[in-house]
Amino acid sequence: MRPDEARPRLAALGFRPDDVETLADHFLDAERRGSLGHGLSRIAWLETWEALPVDARPERRVEEPGYELWDGCGALGYLTLAAAVEAQLAAPPERARVVVCTRTFPTGALGYWTRKLAEGGLVALLTATSPRRLPPPGGGEPLTGTNPLSIAIPSRDGAPVVSDVSMGAVTHGDVLAGRALPEELVPFGGEQAHKAFALAVGLQLLVDALTPDDGFGAVLIVARPEADPVPGFRSLAAGARLPGDRR
Amino acid sequence: MRPDEARPRLAALGFRPDDVETLADHFLDAERRGSLGHGLSRIAWLETWEALPVDARPERRVEEPGYELWDGCGALGYLTLAAAVEAQLAAPPERARVVVCTRTFPTGALGYWTRKLAEGGLVALLTATSPRRLPPPGGGEPLTGTNPLSIAIPSRDGAPVVSDVSMGAVTHGDVLAGRALPEELVPFGGEQAHKAFALAVGLQLLVDALTPDDGFGAVLIVARPEADPVPGFRSLAAGARLPGDRR
Repeated sequence: MRPDEARPRLAALGFRPDDVETLADHFLDAERRGSLGHGLSRIAWLETWEALPVDARPERRVEEPGYELWDGCGALGYLTLAAAVEAQLAAPPERARVVVCTRTFPTGALGYWTRKLAEGGLVALLTATSPRRLPPPGGGEPLTGTNPLSIAIPSRDGAPVVSDVSMGAVTHGDVLAGRALPEELVPFGGEQAHKAFALAVGLQLLVDALTPDDGFGAVLIVARPEADPVPGFRSLAAGARLPGDRR
Repeated sequence: MRPDEARPRLAALGFRPDDVETLADHFLDAERRGSLGHGLSRIAWLETWEALPVDARPERRVEEPGYELWDGCGALGYLTLAAAVEAQLAAPPERARVVVCTRTFPTGALGYWTRKLAEGGLVALLTATSPRRLPPPGGGEPLTGTNPLSIAIPSRDGAPVVSDVSMGAVTHGDVLAGRALPEELVPFGGEQAHKAFALAVGLQLLVDALTPDDGFGAVLIVARPEADPVPGFRSLAAGARLPGDRR
């Protein structure tokens, strides 16, 4: 699929014009950053859905200074995260806020969302669940999603630092595309895969415990920075490529 | 050092009786769980300090429903985390709270603190910084601490699940004890060490951005659970050992 096909094909699926923009921007950004599993291939994937929830809208069910609960209400998770992120940028927390998104799937490239928050001056930490695909390192049935964790830190003098790490050794997209074998979709780390598995379990149960509904969800922490560590860190790294920098 | 020596030796260092209890409980628990680098060896380490801040007390500088800022004020980080954790259990958040601990070092075995919160019914996520010891996977100067991430989830019907993962392939304690070589203290994951490094960078800058003072710190998120996922997860795991379970 060519980049210029993204918007017409999303529109043809019945999405409203502003949702077409939201989805296309996410998929095209993933494509540019080389996260092909979160990119344009997802439009072809959406075209296989029997009934796309193009009319569903996410709702903010709880709104407090330090806590929000968003409900996907059947909408695509991308749109729920987009609405929740936009709301944080429009009304940032005085200090910090925990934002729980229930019934929220799929969530795409988490670094896309945390980068938006960091570009708006906020520190962000985001994780999300997805279908269980990672077995424990000793083998067995899959117990957790690949459960990425993304952290983004704004910088007053330039680009934010954005880390975005899946706990899988390969992505589900790699398996679908034939770039990896299904048995390679295990916690990353080789001999130390128990560490990535423990992170995946912790993040899985964190989301499952904080979302009131069954199913997939996301947990986001946003906060105003009290310091500006990125320039000093980049200087210490002396030109080394940092997470989230373009290759 | 024998376990029964812990309290007399801490008392001999000049710590107040309640601080002796707090410190001994942490070190003895780490010892029982096999985290020897966080255990009794730390008492011998404290005995090498030129001036132990036995009279310093942590202070809560900001107290809001969804945010607290604690300042170690020169006290040992163990005592700052102990005070912050006790305060959360005494007055849990209505929904969720971000607790930042500035000038807080050393912080010990993070799973010890998150387990206390989960045993009190709260979901907890905790990370903390420490001296820079991890170089990037391509080599170079150390850029981040080992920056562990611990997540604990309470369960209404039994033990919480407690994950606690350092981003280092070995611990600094292993190096000090001669169980590992200094050059083995790198991000874990072998060929995928860039993932553990990206996590370490994200956690490092998260703490550095949220703490107003230079130096080491900790960031804790506590929340009331909206669901009870642990029993179902243990059932799905069918007896597999989960993070934090006794070996």
